[in-house]
Amino acid sequence: MSGNTFGQLFAVTNFGESHGPAIGCVIDGCPPGMELSEADIQGDLDRRRPGTSRHVTQRNEPDTVQILSGVYQGKTTGTPIALLIQNTDQRSKDYGNILETFRPGHADYTYFQKYGIRDPRGGGRSSARLTAPMVAAGAVAKKWLKEKYGTTFRGCMTQVGDLPIAFESWEHVPHNPFFAPLADVQVLEDYMDALRKAGDSCGARIRVSASNVPVGLGEPLFDKMDSDIAYAMMGINAVKGVEIGAGFASVAQRGTVHGDSLTPQGFASNNAGGVLGGISTGQDLEVSIAIKPTSSIITPRDSIDVQGNPTQVITKGRHDPCVGIRATPIAEAMLALVVMEHALRHRAQCGDVVPVLTPIPGSI
Amino acid sequence: MSGNTFGQLFAVTNFGESHGPAIGCVIDGCPPGMELSEADIQGDLDRRRPGTSRHVTQRNEPDTVQILSGVYQGKTTGTPIALLIQNTDQRSKDYGNILETFRPGHADYTYFQKYGIRDPRGGGRSSARLTAPMVAAGAVAKKWLKEKYGTTFRGCMTQVGDLPIAFESWEHVPHNPFFAPLADVQVLEDYMDALRKAGDSCGARIRVSASNVPVGLGEPLFDKMDSDIAYAMMGINAVKGVEIGAGFASVAQRGTVHGDSLTPQGFASNNAGGVLGGISTGQDLEVSIAIKPTSSIITPRDSIDVQGNPTQVITKGRHDPCVGIRATPIAEAMLALVVMEHALRHRAQCGDVVPVLTPIPGSI
Amino acid sequence: MSGNTFGQLFAVTNFGESHGPAIGCVIDGCPPGMELSEADIQGDLDRRRPGTSRHVTQRNEPDTVQILSGVYQGKTTGTPIALLIQNTDQRSKDYGNILETFRPGHADYTYFQKYGIRDPRGGGRSSARLTAPMVAAGAVAKKWLKEKYGTTFRGCMTQVGDLPIAFESWEHVPHNPFFAPLADVQVLEDYMDALRKAGDSCGARIRVSASNVPVGLGEPLFDKMDSDIAYAMMGINAVKGVEIGAGFASVAQRGTVHGDSLTPQGFASNNAGGVLGGISTGQDLEVSIAIKPTSSIITPRDSIDVQGNPTQVITKGRHDPCVGIRATPIAEAMLALVVMEHALRHRAQCGDVVPVLTPIPGSI
Amino acid sequence: MSGNTFGQLFAVTNFGESHGPAIGCVIDGCPPGMELSEADIQGDLDRRRPGTSRHVTQRNEPDTVQILSGVYQGKTTGTPIALLIQNTDQRSKDYGNILETFRPGHADYTYFQKYGIRDPRGGGRSSARLTAPMVAAGAVAKKWLKEKYGTTFRGCMTQVGDLPIAFESWEHVPHNPFFAPLADVQVLEDYMDALRKAGDSCGARIRVSASNVPVGLGEPLFDKMDSDIAYAMMGINAVKGVEIGAGFASVAQRGTVHGDSLTPQGFASNNAGGVLGGISTGQDLEVSIAIKPTSSIITPRDSIDVQGNPTQVITKGRHDPCVGIRATPIAEAMLALVVMEHALRHRAQCGDVVPVLTPIPGSI
Repeated sequence: MSGNTFGQLFAVTNFGESHGPAIGCVIDGCPPGMELSEADIQGDLDRRRPGTSRHVTQRNEPDTVQILSGVYQGKTTGTPIALLIQNTDQRSKDYGNILETFRPGHADYTYFQKYGIRDPRGGGRSSARLTAPMVAAGAVAKKWLKEKYGTTFRGCMTQVGDLPIAFESWEHVPHNPFFAPLADVQVLEDYMDALRKAGDSCGARIRVSASNVPVGLGEPLFDKMDSDIAYAMMGINAVKGVEIGAGFASVAQRGTVHGDSLTPQGFASNNAGGVLGGISTGQDLEVSIAIKPTSSIITPRDSIDVQGNPTQVITKGRHDPCVGIRATPIAEAMLALVVMEHALRHRAQCGDVVPVLTPIPGSI
Repeated sequence: MSGNTFGQLFAVTNFGESHGPAIGCVIDGCPPGMELSEADIQGDLDRRRPGTSRHVTQRNEPDTVQILSGVYQGKTTGTPIALLIQNTDQRSKDYGNILETFRPGHADYTYFQKYGIRDPRGGGRSSARLTAPMVAAGAVAKKWLKEKYGTTFRGCMTQVGDLPIAFESWEHVPHNPFFAPLADVQVLEDYMDALRKAGDSCGARIRVSASNVPVGLGEPLFDKMDSDIAYAMMGINAVKGVEIGAGFASVAQRGTVHGDSLTPQGFASNNAGGVLGGISTGQDLEVSIAIKPTSSIITPRDSIDVQGNPTQVITKGRHDPCVGIRATPIAEAMLALVVMEHALRHRAQCGDVVPVLTPIPGSI
Repeated sequence: MSGNTFGQLFAVTNFGESHGPAIGCVIDGCPPGMELSEADIQGDLDRRRPGTSRHVTQRNEPDTVQILSGVYQGKTTGTPIALLIQNTDQRSKDYGNILETFRPGHADYTYFQKYGIRDPRGGGRSSARLTAPMVAAGAVAKKWLKEKYGTTFRGCMTQVGDLPIAFESWEHVPHNPFFAPLADVQVLEDYMDALRKAGDSCGARIRVSASNVPVGLGEPLFDKMDSDIAYAMMGINAVKGVEIGAGFASVAQRGTVHGDSLTPQGFASNNAGGVLGGISTGQDLEVSIAIKPTSSIITPRDSIDVQGNPTQVITKGRHDPCVGIRATPIAEAMLALVVMEHALRHRAQCGDVVPVLTPIPGSI
Repeated sequence: MSGNTFGQLFAVTNFGESHGPAIGCVIDGCPPGMELSEADIQGDLDRRRPGTSRHVTQRNEPDTVQILSGVYQGKTTGTPIALLIQNTDQRSKDYGNILETFRPGHADYTYFQKYGIRDPRGGGRSSARLTAPMVAAGAVAKKWLKEKYGTTFRGCMTQVGDLPIAFESWEHVPHNPFFAPLADVQVLEDYMDALRKAGDSCGARIRVSASNVPVGLGEPLFDKMDSDIAYAMMGINAVKGVEIGAGFASVAQRGTVHGDSLTPQGFASNNAGGVLGGISTGQDLEVSIAIKPTSSIITPRDSIDVQGNPTQVITKGRHDPCVGIRATPIAEAMLALVVMEHALRHRAQCGDVVPVLTPIPGSI
């Protein structure tokens, strides 16, 4: 209820602050009998972690995950899986006058107003560092979904600042620090270098998708597959917009164009983004999100202090000039957690056996 | 868990199908002692109901609400408020071959796959008719928020199909069937007439906002104010995209532009859309949603039947050529339900007294 | 959260007051495809309804249930099942000075303190009449569990006031108004007649059990099968105590006696009452509850009025001198709802297939 | 949903196994601004910890708690409070053949059937060791309730095996290892010594109560104060029965006796145990629980192995011959968590201000 647990049947309770002793999560509801070790989780954490290129924060955190419970002799037991990540690089001296002021575009102000107290070290609880436990939990969900249904997840950057990124191929994504589907990312390198030199930050657009999603997942009225995806994505730090399938472009589409035809071989298009009436169609889930520019920048900004007096704020320290660069594995993880939740809900109400239409239309 | 309850502290459980005997909802958690009668609810229902212009479905439903419980001598008692709306115009004979086929872009297919059974009369549970109880519940939330905090909600159409609608004034909205902020809507009338003649449908973009929202509402990590707004909006039938504040435009903004400066008199802009770090800033909440074109159209579409054989589908019956036209009061209601939920959550954890910063910055 | 929904995966939301226009519930999460009609539900309602003998309230309510949604062509669709029961006999004129006073042992006082307002007609929301929708919902759960696993539920009275009732046979239970396992209930008739003549009321002890419960249902730490049974039973009006298996007698048992031995043919005894570590053993669930004497009696009692002044209260009207008499079908229904919830939870996490130990020990 | 989170507004998520690296919990929803340090929690943990007398398990665990998050500069921030307790004494070699067999009266069998896998080291997740994090969380709840309302909690043993313990005074409770309200506990010492010599175990009855509970806490229909107490108590390892107020004795009481009279000075008795209609009356909450004898005993018992073959089981290792001895602080903690949850729920729906009846009747 206080917003630190994601999901209900595959429930991930997140804890920690950017500069406390540790962060982590407790996963409750993982099916028993799945092989699981730290190595299954570390890979995705490494994709998200800071310090991997000059374009992201230089904070140096190995983000090594430790499984505290829920696994016995290498297999999940059905009981809670607690994951712990030590905070090892907390240079809180860098944070200057932000203890007494509010950064424009940052949660400083709202936390202070809500609670009457805030932990200002590294943004405390509002830090994007708290996405690390979600990436870890998402890795567990991904593993189960892969083994059970063959479901897979992937994502890429489709725009950085005002620079659109053409889609060349998924195969390029792992080979550059931007998760860009490009063979040559020099234009992105140059863009980021200029931005950093200007002391400014920029936004990004990320695409994330899931393949081999079973048909029939999602609840019809409120906990729709797309509602829960929107909830999950908008909950990622700095996200300001979410689209499913054709998204905002569907406004200008005609019904004769938008509605994906069905054929005996499957759907003829995917404007739906894999969801109709809140329930998965079996096509790829297709999601796009807008990430705003980082609020922690070294250019001075007008603000007020905690007494309400005017002041200027400069954020020193180590910050991502474009938080969107590291957002791809986070968005994948959140999408995996949504699909996992709905896979378990579907089993609860409808059982393991999926109703069969022969031939089952898939994506063309 | 099965997706028919919205909210937890102000929990609205929705039931019914388009052509069953009745639809309705149960509101659990309404604070006691508020004056409430059917008249407080009927107004918003009338704004949403069908048959009010030639541009919406000609189904003739008075949508008269009856309070079954939770009110004694004109005041809420703190116990569940059950609201009932009889279905009075069920012409199920109009639905032709859709019992055996799947409309492209419609939930027919996914319901059948999920449950192995579906109620095809008027779309059954997937009908937008089920938004009526939410509008009713939203009216209760609006009333409490208005009396407690002075919070108000309003919305308007900002685009229909490929036709953008310039914002003239909120005052025009109640005076045309489109909820358009225009003095003269002839261009919209013509647009819709041409569309109907073509046997096609189109999408729409709707803006909805809330004013006088208390600062400090929303939970920081998952149940963020903006996450829950995204969840609520994406759950409205036919919605494919959601934006908060600058939304997708924030991708191309620089940090020096996007982050709203604070001054002793309040925020200098509202790119945040009234939410920072998931918590309300006290500024207006600003939300924009994309609604896809209606899938029920009279133009023949390629599809399959329940045996998987190719066929063509024509949807007869009475359908909205642009479901977005009636979406404004629905989006307002859902936004009100989100704010109400977070108002109660805030009271639970932080008490009635809001932490005070003097002067409290509001919107400029 | 406000306490009017029971269960999460098989969630029953209850609404109404004793003398409002109607009472009812919404069942969310019922598996699709089960045959269901009002006739499947009416039987248990008839077992609970008032006016069936001179020993219970003479309120004359047929308690006819109407299914408003969730069933299409005689089968559940997986969407919410709304059940409505009209209140037809509201003689609120009988309630005398209780509008301004608090009956000792009654919820009058606490409702008034909690909400600052209460509906005094027939006890309003605190009336045992609100168990009727739970009996209806329980009938739906019973039907599914019977068809899926062969699970059955039954209960009987084991003590009334200070009169213990020896167990003769389950077959006698349906043939007397007390749900007593006795061939001859004259002693109970006489006991109740004397009590009514004395203008007093008495308590009762009820036993309820379930057979053919699948092994493995229940969650280990908090949502234990026995925790949830205790929660469900203590929530029935007037219940003051709950026991599982040997219950309070287990305090004086030695470990060598209490722990039920396992044999290849099954457990050798059932002190556990069918639950070990919170999880069902496959043996019969055995539950016993204590019901306090009715607080609404015609003998004058010392009390205060709403201004805090001393007064005396006499409750006129039509009340059960022993609410325990009608409690058996209620307790059965609540037990069925708990088992149903855990059956669905088990499917979510562990799937439809139950881990097999050969031979599976059952009860001997 | 998988049963490892207690509460919703003050939600405690528990993790760990008896012999894993660590156990702990995450508290979500604690109000901000309360002073909190490890020292506030350690006291209750020390009351529960093993090895404090010869009558309890000789496992040697300091049970030192570490706060990982949610506290900044000595005050709660409103964000999750993660508590970690290292397991330091895991002698898993002691557990003999129980890896392949099922102890009568133990969760071995049901865990294996439910999950198809179990962690047998020290009972794994089913160990009473997992109550330690609840005692820690309860200490946080106690502190807040004490500061906010003056609410206090206490408990004592009222029976051990077949030996009733007369109530002398609360003041004796802290001065003996049994939490007995006796000045001289020699009879208990002798009883336990004889039991241990016999290689057997016994049950216990525990009383727990809360004073200065605000009037009006608890929800009327399902999440009644007494329902939630029953749920919480029955969830403690080995509990088989729960009573509120007069409990099972109320069956034989007449209505003229049971119903507590109200006077301008307060209630004249407390048969209700502080709850009417599920809502607190402002009187002391009075709860009694039955704890079964420990299933882990050194006397050989008939059982089966995982193949279903007959065998005998002897439990070696370090076990409590009467788990009831250490149950008092656990029951206090669970009661505190229930009251805390309802205090926050009440604030959500009804606000901070309690409706006032002058004079407010309290307990006499």
